[in-house]
Amino acid sequence: MALVDNTLWWLALPVAASVIAIIFAFGLRRWVLANDTGTPAMRKVSDAIYKGAQAFLSRQYRTIAILALISAVVIGAVLAIIANYQHSTDPWWVVGIRTGLSFLFGAFCSGLAGYIGMQVAVRANIRVASAAQRGLGDALMVSLRGGAVSGFLVISLSLLGVTVLYLIVLALGTSPTSTPVAIVGFGFGASFVALFAQLGGGIYTKAADVGADLVGKIEAGIPEDDPRNPAVIADLVGDNVGDCAGRGADIFESTAAENIGAMILGASVALALAGNATAHASPAWVIFPLVVVGAGILCSLVGLFTVRKAGVLEPEQAGGRDPGEIAWSQLNRGYLVTAVISAIAIVVISYLLLGPVTGKWWAFALAGLVGIANSIAFVYITNYYTSGSFRPVREIAEAAKTGPGTTIISGLAVGFENTALPVLAISIALGLSYYLGTLTGLGSHGVVSIGGIYATAVATMGMLMSAGYVLAMDTFGPITDNAGGIVEMSNAPESVRNITDALDGVGNTTKALTKGYGIGSAALAAFLLFSAYLDIIYSPSGTKPATASALPYGVNLANPPVFIAGLIGAMLIFLFSSLAIRAVGTAAQAMIQEVRRQFKANPKIMQGTAEPDYARCVDISTSSALRQMVLPGVLVVGTPILVGVVLGPEAAAGLLMVGTVAGILMALVMNNGGGAWDNAKKYIEAGYLKDDKGNVLGKRTPAHDAAIVGDTVGDPFKDTAGPSLHVVIKLLSTITLVLAPLFIALHP
Amino acid sequence: MALVDNTLWWLALPVAASVIAIIFAFGLRRWVLANDTGTPAMRKVSDAIYKGAQAFLSRQYRTIAILALISAVVIGAVLAIIANYQHSTDPWWVVGIRTGLSFLFGAFCSGLAGYIGMQVAVRANIRVASAAQRGLGDALMVSLRGGAVSGFLVISLSLLGVTVLYLIVLALGTSPTSTPVAIVGFGFGASFVALFAQLGGGIYTKAADVGADLVGKIEAGIPEDDPRNPAVIADLVGDNVGDCAGRGADIFESTAAENIGAMILGASVALALAGNATAHASPAWVIFPLVVVGAGILCSLVGLFTVRKAGVLEPEQAGGRDPGEIAWSQLNRGYLVTAVISAIAIVVISYLLLGPVTGKWWAFALAGLVGIANSIAFVYITNYYTSGSFRPVREIAEAAKTGPGTTIISGLAVGFENTALPVLAISIALGLSYYLGTLTGLGSHGVVSIGGIYATAVATMGMLMSAGYVLAMDTFGPITDNAGGIVEMSNAPESVRNITDALDGVGNTTKALTKGYGIGSAALAAFLLFSAYLDIIYSPSGTKPATASALPYGVNLANPPVFIAGLIGAMLIFLFSSLAIRAVGTAAQAMIQEVRRQFKANPKIMQGTAEPDYARCVDISTSSALRQMVLPGVLVVGTPILVGVVLGPEAAAGLLMVGTVAGILMALVMNNGGGAWDNAKKYIEAGYLKDDKGNVLGKRTPAHDAAIVGDTVGDPFKDTAGPSLHVVIKLLSTITLVLAPLFIALHP
Repeated sequence: MALVDNTLWWLALPVAASVIAIIFAFGLRRWVLANDTGTPAMRKVSDAIYKGAQAFLSRQYRTIAILALISAVVIGAVLAIIANYQHSTDPWWVVGIRTGLSFLFGAFCSGLAGYIGMQVAVRANIRVASAAQRGLGDALMVSLRGGAVSGFLVISLSLLGVTVLYLIVLALGTSPTSTPVAIVGFGFGASFVALFAQLGGGIYTKAADVGADLVGKIEAGIPEDDPRNPAVIADLVGDNVGDCAGRGADIFESTAAENIGAMILGASVALALAGNATAHASPAWVIFPLVVVGAGILCSLVGLFTVRKAGVLEPEQAGGRDPGEIAWSQLNRGYLVTAVISAIAIVVISYLLLGPVTGKWWAFALAGLVGIANSIAFVYITNYYTSGSFRPVREIAEAAKTGPGTTIISGLAVGFENTALPVLAISIALGLSYYLGTLTGLGSHGVVSIGGIYATAVATMGMLMSAGYVLAMDTFGPITDNAGGIVEMSNAPESVRNITDALDGVGNTTKALTKGYGIGSAALAAFLLFSAYLDIIYSPSGTKPATASALPYGVNLANPPVFIAGLIGAMLIFLFSSLAIRAVGTAAQAMIQEVRRQFKANPKIMQGTAEPDYARCVDISTSSALRQMVLPGVLVVGTPILVGVVLGPEAAAGLLMVGTVAGILMALVMNNGGGAWDNAKKYIEAGYLKDDKGNVLGKRTPAHDAAIVGDTVGDPFKDTAGPSLHVVIKLLSTITLVLAPLFIALHP
Repeated sequence: MALVDNTLWWLALPVAASVIAIIFAFGLRRWVLANDTGTPAMRKVSDAIYKGAQAFLSRQYRTIAILALISAVVIGAVLAIIANYQHSTDPWWVVGIRTGLSFLFGAFCSGLAGYIGMQVAVRANIRVASAAQRGLGDALMVSLRGGAVSGFLVISLSLLGVTVLYLIVLALGTSPTSTPVAIVGFGFGASFVALFAQLGGGIYTKAADVGADLVGKIEAGIPEDDPRNPAVIADLVGDNVGDCAGRGADIFESTAAENIGAMILGASVALALAGNATAHASPAWVIFPLVVVGAGILCSLVGLFTVRKAGVLEPEQAGGRDPGEIAWSQLNRGYLVTAVISAIAIVVISYLLLGPVTGKWWAFALAGLVGIANSIAFVYITNYYTSGSFRPVREIAEAAKTGPGTTIISGLAVGFENTALPVLAISIALGLSYYLGTLTGLGSHGVVSIGGIYATAVATMGMLMSAGYVLAMDTFGPITDNAGGIVEMSNAPESVRNITDALDGVGNTTKALTKGYGIGSAALAAFLLFSAYLDIIYSPSGTKPATASALPYGVNLANPPVFIAGLIGAMLIFLFSSLAIRAVGTAAQAMIQEVRRQFKANPKIMQGTAEPDYARCVDISTSSALRQMVLPGVLVVGTPILVGVVLGPEAAAGLLMVGTVAGILMALVMNNGGGAWDNAKKYIEAGYLKDDKGNVLGKRTPAHDAAIVGDTVGDPFKDTAGPSLHVVIKLLSTITLVLAPLFIALHP
C-alpha cells in the first residue's frame, strides 16, 4: 500500500497549512519589525533586555544540547541492543539510529521553537511601547501579531516536523500503521528540551521577579519596573526566557507528543478493523490527527485576522470603559471565532476522511466537538478562579486585611479548591468522548474499547485545533509585560503607561487562560498517551493489538508492584515541585541580598542619580537557573526509567497514570493558586478593597504588603513549577513510550 | 466448627490484654488525679479550659450523633433492601440491623474514645503545671501517665470492641471466616465519628491558635499564652478538643478498621487453604491480627513502665544538658523497648498460631518485623524533617531572613520534598512484606498473591503493636502544652516555666512523630484495606474468594471509568484539604478582628489591669468549628458512594486507591511542612539563627516575624488538614467496604 494509498494525499493539508502559517508568520514578523522603535530611552532598555535574553539562551541551550546528545546516544544504543537481541524485523542499527535521530530532530525543533518564540517577542516589546504612544489599537495589534509570529511558527513547526518525519519513515518502507511507533523518539526529544527550557526559564524569571518585588516594593517602596531597582532588567529578561522561550518549547512538545500518540491509537483502530492485517489497514485513522491539527492552524489564522484595529475604541472615545476590557473583548472574539470554525472543520474532516472507513464517523465528529467544548470550559473555569471579578480572588484580597498569614492560607485554599471543576470537566469530556467512541463498535482490548480510546484522542485533537491562536495570546502576555516595563523605565507619559498597563493586565489574563488550556489539553491527552503506551506494551512488535484472550490488557493497581510504582509516580510530582520552587526561593534570597547590598553601598541609586548594577542581578538569575534546572530534570527523566527497568512495563504504566493524575492536580493548584494571588494583589492596587468604614485599602497599606507576599509565593507556583509540570506529564508518557521495548525485554 | 475450634481460645489474649490495660489505665488515672492541683491562679485557668472543652465537646457530639444516626438508618436500610433483593443467606432484616448496629456501636465507641482522650488530659494539665514546681521528673511522669490513660483506654476499647463484636456475631452462628465482613460497619462507624471529631477539633484549635498568634505576637508583641490575649483560653481549649479528643477518635478508628480489614484477608487465606470449604478453614488466620494487637498492648505497657522518674536528671544536676533532651531520651527509650519486645512477641505468636497451619509461618513473622522496622524508619524520617537539628528546618529559618515570602516558599518546598523518603520506606516495606508472603505459596487472585497480601496485613499489625505507647506520647503533647499555658497565665516563677517549656518542646516532637507514625501505618494499611475491598467485590457472598478463572481480579486504571474515578479520588483529597484550611483561615480572620476590637475598645487589657473577654473568642472557635466541619465531612462520605453507584465497584476501587495515594502524600506535606515551620520559629526563638556578622536574630526581629507567619500557615496544615486526612484515607476504605454490596447490586 504505502505511499500509493489515495488517503495519504490528505497529508497535503497539514503540510500546506504549516507552510501557509509559516509564510504568514514571516509576513507578520516583517510587519511587526517595521513598526518604529520609540525613543532612545526606550531603545536603551530594550537593548539591555535583548542582550540578557540572548546571553541566557545561548548558555542554557549549550547545557541542554549536551544533555540531549548524551541521551540520544544512550537511547539509540539501548534500543539497538534490544532490537538485536530480539531479532526485530528492522535491522538493529536502523532501530537505534532511527530513534536517536528522531530524538535529536525533536530536540532540535523544540529548541528552535523556543528560540523563535523569544526572538520576535524580545524585539516586539519596544515596538509595542512605541505604538502605545499612538494608541490602544496600535499597541494591541503590534503585541498580538508579535505573539502570533511565535505562536504560528511553533505550531507549524511541530506539525510539519511530525508529518515530514512520518513521510520519511514511510518512504523508507515502513507500513503506515507501524510508522507512528517508529517516530515516538521525536516526541521524547521535544519533551526533553521543553522540560529544561521551561524549568530553567521559569527559575530565571521568578528568581528575578520575587527578588525585585520583595525588596523593591515592600522594603524600598518603589513601584514595579522602577529603573532604580537593580533587579529590574533581570525581571524583564525573565519574562522573555521563561514565558516566551519556555512556553514555546512546551506547546511544541505538547502538539508533537499528542499527535504521535493519537497516530499510534489510529494505527490500532486501523489494524483492528483490518483483522490485524497490515496490508488491509487504512491509513486514514493514522493521519486523521495530523489533518485535524492542520485545519486547526488555518482556523486559528482566520481567528487572528478577525482581531482588527478598527474594532478597538481608543480610551478617549470609550466613555470611561476600561481599556483592558476593550482589548480583551477583541482577543476573546478572535478565540471564539477560532473555536466555532474549528468545530465546523472537525465535523467536515471526520465525514470526509473517516466516513469512507466507518459509518459511525459522526461519533468521532461529536467527540471532536466535546474536545472543543472542553477547551472553552477550561477558559471559563480558569477565568473564574483567577479574575478579580469573582469570589476566589476577592476572598484572598479580604484575607489580606488580616496579614500575610491569612493571605497565604486563603490562597492555598483557593489553589487546592480549584482542582474540583477542572477535574469534573475533564471527567465529563473523557467519559463522554469515550462513550461516543464505544458506539462505533470497533472492537476492544479486554474491557477497553478501541474506538472509545480513539475518540478521546479525537477530542484532544479538537482541543488542540485552537493551539495556534492560544499560543499567540500567550506570547502577547510577556510582550505587553515587557512593553510596560520599557515605558516605565523610560519615563514615558502617564497616558502611554495607562495603555501598556491595561494591556499588561490583559496579558496576565491570557497567560492564565493558556495555562488552563495547556493543563486541560494535557489532562485529556493523558489518556491518549497512556493508551498508546499500553498498545505498545501489549503488542511488542507494534503491529498486532492485544486481544482479550492474549495478555491481560490493563494496569492493575491491585498488583503491589504497580501500586508501588503509582505511589512513586505521585511522589515524583511532589518532589519535582519542591525542587522547582526551592530553586526559585534560593535564587530569590540571593537576589534580595544583592539588591539590599546595592541600595546600602550606593545611596545615590535610590535618589535616582546613579544607575544600579543590573548585570550582577542578571548574572545571579542566569547562574542559578542553569545550576538548578539539572537535578529536577534528571529526576523526572530517570525515575520512570528506573521503575520500568526494576518493576516492569505494567508498573511503569502505573507510575505514568498515577503520576499524571497527581501532575494534573498539582499543576492546577500551582497555576491558578498563583494566578489568584497575583490578581488579588492587582485587585487591591486597583483600589477595590475597602475596610469596614468604606475607606479604600490600596497601595502601600498593610493589606497591600500582605498581598505582595502572596504574589511572591504564587510566582514560582504559576511560572516555574506549574508550567514545568505540564511538560513533566507529557515527558513521563514519551519516555515510557520510547523505552517500552527495554522494559518488555527485561520483563518478558 | 464455630466456637468449639480450639484456636478460638487464642481470643482470650486480646480480651485479657484489653482488660488488663483498662485496669491499668484506671489505676494511672487515679494516680494522676491524686497529684495536687497547684495554686488558685492555676486552678482558675484550668477550670476555664475544662469548661470550654466540655461545652464544645457536648455541642459537637450532638451534631455528630445526629449525622451518625441518620447514616446508620440509611446504610442499614440500603443493605437490607439489597439482601432482600438478592436472597442472601442471612435474612434481610438481620443484614440491615447487623450493619446499622455495628455502625452505631463503632460510632459510639469512637466518640467515647475521643471523650476519654480529652477527659483525663484536661485534668492532667494543671497537675503537670503543679508538678513542674517540684521538678522535671515529676512533671514528666504526670504528663506521660496522663497521656497513657487515654492512650491505653482508646486502644483497648478498639480491640475489645472488635473482638467482642466478632464473638457475638460468631455466637449467632456465622462462620469464623465470614464474620469479619459482617462487622465492617463497626469500622465505618468509628471512622465516621473520627472524621468529624478530628476535623471539628482541628478547626477549633487552629482558628484560636492562628488568631492568637497573629495579633498577639506580631501586632501587640506579647508572648504566647499571655493572659492579656483574649484568644488565649480558646487556644488552650483547642489543644484538648483537637489534639486529644480528635486524635483519640482517629487512632481508635485506625486500629479498628485495620484489624477488621486484616481479618477479612485472613478469611481469604483460610478459605484458599481449605479449598474454599468454610468447614475446613482454620480461624487462626482470621484472629491472628487481634492476637498480635493484643500482645502489642502488653508490650506498650511494659515500655511505658520503663520510663521512670529515677532516670530523669533534674536541671540543677544536669550540668547544662537541655532538660527537653533528657525528657525525650526517656520517652524514646520507652518506645524502643516497646518496639524490641513487640518484635519478639510477633515472632513467637506467628510460630504458635500460624505454625500449625503453615510451615512457612516464618515469612509472616519476618513481615511483622518489616512493619516494626517501618515504624522506626518513619520516626527517624519525621524527626529529620521537623527537628531544628537538621537541614530542612534550618533552611526555613535561613529563608526567614529575607521575609515571609521566602519563608513560605521554603517551607512549601520542604513540605513537598518530605514525601520522598516516606514513600520509599513504604514502597520497601510493602514490597518486601508482599514478597515474603508470596514465598508461602498460598494461592493467588489472578496475579495477586493471597499470602503476599496477608503479609502486608501482618506488617501493618506489627506496626500497630506500639500504638498504645505512641498514643500515650501523643496525648503527652497537648497536656504539656496546656501545662505551659497554665504556668504562663498564672505567673509562675521562671524555673517552673523552663521545665514546662522544655516538656512542651518535647511534646511538639512527639506530636509530629505520632503523626508520622499515623500516616506510615495508614499507608501500609491502605493496601490491606483495598485488598479487603477487592476480596468482597470479587466474592459477593463473602464466602468464596475470586480465582483467576472467575472475574478479572484487579483495578484496571486503563479502563476509562476507573481512571476517571481515580482522578476524582485524588481531587477529593485536594478539595477536602482546601475546605479544611479555608475553615481555619476564615475563623482565624474572625478571631483576629475580635482580638483587635477588644484591644481597641479597652486599653486596660494591654496594661494588664482588665481581664479580656475570653468567652467571646471561645464562642467564635466553637461556632466556626461546628458550622464548617459538616461540608467537608459530607463531601468525603458522599463522593465515594456516588462514584460507586454511578460508575460501579471497580471504579470505586480506583477512587479508593488513587485517592489514598494522594491522601498519603498530602498528609505528609501537611504534617511535616507544618511541623517544620513550627520548629523553624522555635529555632529562631531559641537564638540559633545568626546574621552574616554572627549577631543573633531572635525574638521580635523581622526574621522572627516572618517565621511566625510561616508557623501560622503551618498550623492548619499540621493540626487540621493533615490529621483529618489520616481519617479520610481510612474512611474511604470503610465506606466502600460497607457499601460494596450496593455497588455490586447496581453493576452486576
